[in-house]
Amino acid sequence: MTSINQLFNREQSSALEASGSQPIVLMGRIRLARNLNGFFFPGWSDRNQRERVFNQCKQAIENVPQISPSVNFDIEALDEMERMLLVEKHLISKELSEGQPGSGVVIHESQQTSIMINEEDHLRIQVMSPGLAFDELWQSANTLDDELEKRLDYAYHEKFGYITACPTNLGTAMRASAMLHLPALVVNKEMEKVVRAVNQLGIVSRGLFGESSDPLGSIFQISNQQTLGETEDVIIQRLHHVLETIIEQEQYARIRLFEQDRAKVMDRISRAFGVLKFSKLLSSSEAMNLLSLLRLASDVNVLPVTVREIVDSLFIQIQPAHLQFSNKRVLDTEARDELRALRVKEVLKDIPEPDEISLDFEGSFNKKVDNFDRSR
Amino acid sequence: MTSINQLFNREQSSALEASGSQPIVLMGRIRLARNLNGFFFPGWSDRNQRERVFNQCKQAIENVPQISPSVNFDIEALDEMERMLLVEKHLISKELSEGQPGSGVVIHESQQTSIMINEEDHLRIQVMSPGLAFDELWQSANTLDDELEKRLDYAYHEKFGYITACPTNLGTAMRASAMLHLPALVVNKEMEKVVRAVNQLGIVSRGLFGESSDPLGSIFQISNQQTLGETEDVIIQRLHHVLETIIEQEQYARIRLFEQDRAKVMDRISRAFGVLKFSKLLSSSEAMNLLSLLRLASDVNVLPVTVREIVDSLFIQIQPAHLQFSNKRVLDTEARDELRALRVKEVLKDIPEPDEISLDFEGSFNKKVDNFDRSR
Repeated sequence: MTSINQLFNREQSSALEASGSQPIVLMGRIRLARNLNGFFFPGWSDRNQRERVFNQCKQAIENVPQISPSVNFDIEALDEMERMLLVEKHLISKELSEGQPGSGVVIHESQQTSIMINEEDHLRIQVMSPGLAFDELWQSANTLDDELEKRLDYAYHEKFGYITACPTNLGTAMRASAMLHLPALVVNKEMEKVVRAVNQLGIVSRGLFGESSDPLGSIFQISNQQTLGETEDVIIQRLHHVLETIIEQEQYARIRLFEQDRAKVMDRISRAFGVLKFSKLLSSSEAMNLLSLLRLASDVNVLPVTVREIVDSLFIQIQPAHLQFSNKRVLDTEARDELRALRVKEVLKDIPEPDEISLDFEGSFNKKVDNFDRSR
Repeated sequence: MTSINQLFNREQSSALEASGSQPIVLMGRIRLARNLNGFFFPGWSDRNQRERVFNQCKQAIENVPQISPSVNFDIEALDEMERMLLVEKHLISKELSEGQPGSGVVIHESQQTSIMINEEDHLRIQVMSPGLAFDELWQSANTLDDELEKRLDYAYHEKFGYITACPTNLGTAMRASAMLHLPALVVNKEMEKVVRAVNQLGIVSRGLFGESSDPLGSIFQISNQQTLGETEDVIIQRLHHVLETIIEQEQYARIRLFEQDRAKVMDRISRAFGVLKFSKLLSSSEAMNLLSLLRLASDVNVLPVTVREIVDSLFIQIQPAHLQFSNKRVLDTEARDELRALRVKEVLKDIPEPDEISLDFEGSFNKKVDNFDRSR
């Protein structure tokens, strides 16, 4: 079995850290839930039955060309830090990381596709990529699903569609989501209004690390709530439309922010830069919130455009398990905070300080809409 | 009459900004209150009577060699900014700056001696100098007082000593004080205990700008409360002894702070440095509190020793009237905050970043006690 080390020591980076980063948009993701006939859902199974499902699924997956080359992990074979590493890379869920026997994951070497086995459902197929390339993501997920369906006996009901452990996933059992960076809506305190509005369209918003997590770094995961009674295309189109609107709202919020409070926002950005360069102890939540301001600065040309990719990579690299993995040992909180501060300082050392001479909204606005349209 | 411009555009700096700065100690000051026979106290006088006192005192002062060369100002001839400038330099009190007709000040060109006329008392003789040179300060104040006594008819009572407008000043009518920088006692939350203890010895503690002001920048003015029933020597000796104890307490607090929380305090110092270098808007209170950390860093060798003098000068130069005076116009709060950030950034630009390699308490501790002893 390939080890975590082999997977992550390759030069390949995950969707969140990949190049091709855009203003406002971090990444898109599509996730399908599937279950097999003849077995209880994982939560109702015993170890023995879960192991049978695990082996059957693993074998089927290994024969699908679209997920090759891949590595697979039995969750029990991973230590706490390795599991958290996969969570931080969004390759497995927190739920899977809790380590129920007979569960695991198969990960494509690109780190953009992963299939969890015996999480809440027997299979959770997940594809992600930078930007909002939902057409391509859907195509990938759908192909993978078709190939697996040839090899596995899916539980499917004429009326209810794909059968899932939780009834809220019935039907398409598809969750499409985007990770958006919305600092101006947060600073202007407009995010609550936006969330209320999209909820009425069956769209929900969460933090970077799922259901109940805070919007650290002003990053929001926005996804469809509804899965039943509509085709995947319709669901994706509606989500896409809502995302388009939120992105526009963020763009207008940025223009307002820099028009009305330019001195204050420049001060915040520049201080964030100073604290990131000079702190000796840095918690992950503070780091994310400060890095968020540098990403904003990069989007509006107050910092070089390359800073955006650096920030996106740091968002992941400064997480606790990533720090410990790269340092090859378990670290307590203070040691992590110290190492985090050192890493951030090192990465930022050659970046010129924030400067508003070339403040540029039109450019970033147009570029954004272009990219967005192209991805449809 | 010499203008404010002429006085302050000379290279001469005030006691607070002067060279010879020491760890913990900013400056010492002695102030004598005197009144003339045959006139009401200023608060009970009319304009006409105050003007007679003003002219009589001014003439007497001009003939005293110890305060020559000097400049004198009628308070009504100064605008708001000029008055505040004198307050920020500790050359006049806030009370005098309020501009009662017929009051003013004579300032020695060294800016270390000033005599206020018609503040609360007819005369307030004040001498200050860097460090804790109370013997020299007392000698200066006493000589000046003797010379004035030859030329003016002081109100003096066999039993009550010098008569003063406020009975709490009766007797010697002398207030000796020191400005101490006590950041470790503040961070360790021990300052309240220290204040309570010294209060029992008739010693009081105030902030940098008098009676009710907050201890901005962890700077405290510590002075004798009692003026009656003891000689000046006894009062000064007791104060000196208390200051010695407080300085020792601060030194031990620093050792404890760096021993027990080194990572945290280094983080605070380094962040302060980062924010001071990168902020675009800086209020005077935030600036003072951050600069206070750099002064501490300089004392313990985490920053070059030259930083202490730079900080002491900035403590005064970043005050609102100083900023406006140097910029030659009145500025609103945001414009001041912007200019303050620019000034601080400029002054700090060549200072190397805080580094704990050479952390040195013994040195600063011994050096301190030496200086202290020498000044007695």
